[in-house]
Amino acid sequence: MSKKEIKPSTMLNPVPVVMVSSGDMEKSNIFTAAWTGTICSEPPMVYVSIRKSRYSHEIISEKGTYVINMVGKDTVKACDFCGVKSGRDVDKFAHLGLTKEAGPKTGVPMIKECPVNLECKVTQVLELGSHDMFLAEVVGVYVDGKLMDDKNAIDLVKAHLVAYSHGEYFELGDYKGFFGYSIAGEDALKRRLRK
Amino acid sequence: MSKKEIKPSTMLNPVPVVMVSSGDMEKSNIFTAAWTGTICSEPPMVYVSIRKSRYSHEIISEKGTYVINMVGKDTVKACDFCGVKSGRDVDKFAHLGLTKEAGPKTGVPMIKECPVNLECKVTQVLELGSHDMFLAEVVGVYVDGKLMDDKNAIDLVKAHLVAYSHGEYFELGDYKGFFGYSIAGEDALKRRLRK
Repeated sequence: MSKKEIKPSTMLNPVPVVMVSSGDMEKSNIFTAAWTGTICSEPPMVYVSIRKSRYSHEIISEKGTYVINMVGKDTVKACDFCGVKSGRDVDKFAHLGLTKEAGPKTGVPMIKECPVNLECKVTQVLELGSHDMFLAEVVGVYVDGKLMDDKNAIDLVKAHLVAYSHGEYFELGDYKGFFGYSIAGEDALKRRLRK
Repeated sequence: MSKKEIKPSTMLNPVPVVMVSSGDMEKSNIFTAAWTGTICSEPPMVYVSIRKSRYSHEIISEKGTYVINMVGKDTVKACDFCGVKSGRDVDKFAHLGLTKEAGPKTGVPMIKECPVNLECKVTQVLELGSHDMFLAEVVGVYVDGKLMDDKNAIDLVKAHLVAYSHGEYFELGDYKGFFGYSIAGEDALKRRLRK
């Protein structure tokens, strides 16, 4: 064994970090989730895992809906704040000066300042231990027009997205290649590799 | 609405990208997963979602175990290869010159060249559509000693981890802060913020 064994823990890194909004245009909350990801392509499905004690757990359990708001360099500090303060004590939209836009499919307030919003409808809740996992279908996706070219192709690099790794936030950095680049021919590499 | 609506899809980004190994020291496979993440802290639990047609689906269904091998800049090209070639056609460990080390808790071959390995035991499988989700408990974690200081504190920045975003691989880049930095006092910021 070339490695050192440590206690079993949540060492999978990097992971996403997003702001999850819930509720309606009157009563809402935002919390920060790193225990989130895509779980199915067709239908498109995601999850967020939430501690039972969280205010958002209460709201999402009642409503059965949430919005995943993707986080870039301009919203990472707000995102951090939403992870350490409870919505029982502070109205995070108001405190952070974030703008609500009602999700057309769910009525959940989406965060305008985030580059992409995903409206989600809960399909199943699994009690796993410290966290309950809220599986959901993605029913609406909304993208900042500044990330799209005139053919509506999306370039997420322009969103300066942030990942979470071992308790710290990092912007995405050096480009390594596209899916399939390891076996791509010269033409595809020339056409598709970013400079 | 300030944004453009697009078709519901798997737009949550960035996500992890890892090599998932399975089987035993004789018969094994590696596949690439971006549909993976942490789903519970206590017990530590993760998932990978796998298409039924994949060779790894067959192996993991039979064995009930897998290993998540985290990917850094030195293994990202191998990782990409494992995502586009089937283990039915090629022995990926041999082809890529990767070294097997038997997981002490599961017997699953871990990839020595990856900075961190997580041994996982499947607890539940959910059929969601295109993908089946293999929920698992993390039963062993193994870290490259080069990432640890003399007090065994782990610095994952030294692993140059890679994330996946909208079909492309990116190394983690600019540091933004630690969990809680948005409300930390001057002392904590001075002590804990990376330069």
